[in-house]
Amino acid sequence: MSVGINARMVALAVHALAVVASVMVLIWSISYRGGFAWESTNKTLIFNLHPVLTLIGLVILGGEAIISYKSLPFEKRVNKPIHLVLHATAIILGILGVYAAFKHHNEKHIPNLYTIHSWVGISVIVLYSLQWLYSFIVYFFPGGSSTLRRDLLPWHVFLGVFVYVLAVGNSVLGFLEKLTFLEKSGLDKFGSEAFLVNFMAIITILFGTFVLLIVYSNKKTPSIEEDNYSYSAI
Amino acid sequence: MSVGINARMVALAVHALAVVASVMVLIWSISYRGGFAWESTNKTLIFNLHPVLTLIGLVILGGEAIISYKSLPFEKRVNKPIHLVLHATAIILGILGVYAAFKHHNEKHIPNLYTIHSWVGISVIVLYSLQWLYSFIVYFFPGGSSTLRRDLLPWHVFLGVFVYVLAVGNSVLGFLEKLTFLEKSGLDKFGSEAFLVNFMAIITILFGTFVLLIVYSNKKTPSIEEDNYSYSAI
Repeated sequence: MSVGINARMVALAVHALAVVASVMVLIWSISYRGGFAWESTNKTLIFNLHPVLTLIGLVILGGEAIISYKSLPFEKRVNKPIHLVLHATAIILGILGVYAAFKHHNEKHIPNLYTIHSWVGISVIVLYSLQWLYSFIVYFFPGGSSTLRRDLLPWHVFLGVFVYVLAVGNSVLGFLEKLTFLEKSGLDKFGSEAFLVNFMAIITILFGTFVLLIVYSNKKTPSIEEDNYSYSAI
Repeated sequence: MSVGINARMVALAVHALAVVASVMVLIWSISYRGGFAWESTNKTLIFNLHPVLTLIGLVILGGEAIISYKSLPFEKRVNKPIHLVLHATAIILGILGVYAAFKHHNEKHIPNLYTIHSWVGISVIVLYSLQWLYSFIVYFFPGGSSTLRRDLLPWHVFLGVFVYVLAVGNSVLGFLEKLTFLEKSGLDKFGSEAFLVNFMAIITILFGTFVLLIVYSNKKTPSIEEDNYSYSAI
């Protein structure tokens, strides 16, 4: 049930969308929202770290980690550590991003954890970390038997995709939530910032879709080491 | 890359979650928001049709349509018209639901189409309809060649899943948007209505996840007509 595409070509689109999304979230946070700070009387600068760290971490690096087996021109023994280090970096940036949101709330005396965005966000961090941990044990160190690896692989992919779709969807929830707050405080509903954030949401959805298109693609890359670019090589 | 589950058992969970989500959205719209009307001076009653029709249509009937090949105990020639009639009903209810939102906006002089929820919603209606139309032509009437059917099947599944995930995600976006408006107007962030809507969002995500678990499951249902329960039988 795999779609027939050239995964390397779609990966180029993924990389391009990664750059576009990263630039957009930086322009939003710096040019429109005033930049960043870890300690400041202007608490908005603390919040601004949240979308940047979570989007670039969980969504963009997470997506690049997912496609690394099919997008990188290396062998399995090189791709595997890249896959797990990229995912670990995604989780660390995600945790820092969530911490920035809590810090902003606490210092501004805004209640925590009352929105579905926050509930899904915490779930993503927990599930992403658990997914990383059992996969590290089974597929890296100490490593399970070949039967266990093979039997768990469909679940590794399904649960990984599940958590990733939650992360992508939750970014869009976050963009909607923040934009609704800003518009309720007077931001123009059809102004440049509203369009920037909404188009950033669309780019994020497209990025995630192209990542999953690669996951569910079959091998079309001509290569003598073809097996190295397949998930079945895990 | 299919997960090994008993699709019939997971389908029971899907049906149960469908009932729970339907009851929740009806309780929300009737008990908390005042019920429904097509013409009224109380414009809220017009809006209330929107979450009910779109959730029960696009998400719940759409999900039941997706799993019908694996969840129903019929042969392919029976399952196929059920699959396409359920999807058509989902689209019709979805269009009526979107129309109710526009009607509410227009009669209350609220601008249309400024949120990512509305943009994704329109995209879902258009893409869902296109998906239905080309699939009807290729797989039902007049029907493509067996080569075309086979070659298009992975795309039919991938694009169908893509549109479905957008529909599920967009319901959650809608719940967040409406709840944020209500909370900005004074609704208790930790009150019963807020919890109802947030848990409805979680039930919606679980429903969609179980639907996709069935899509990506392999055949474990013991049956002499086993082939009829597989997508490869289309």
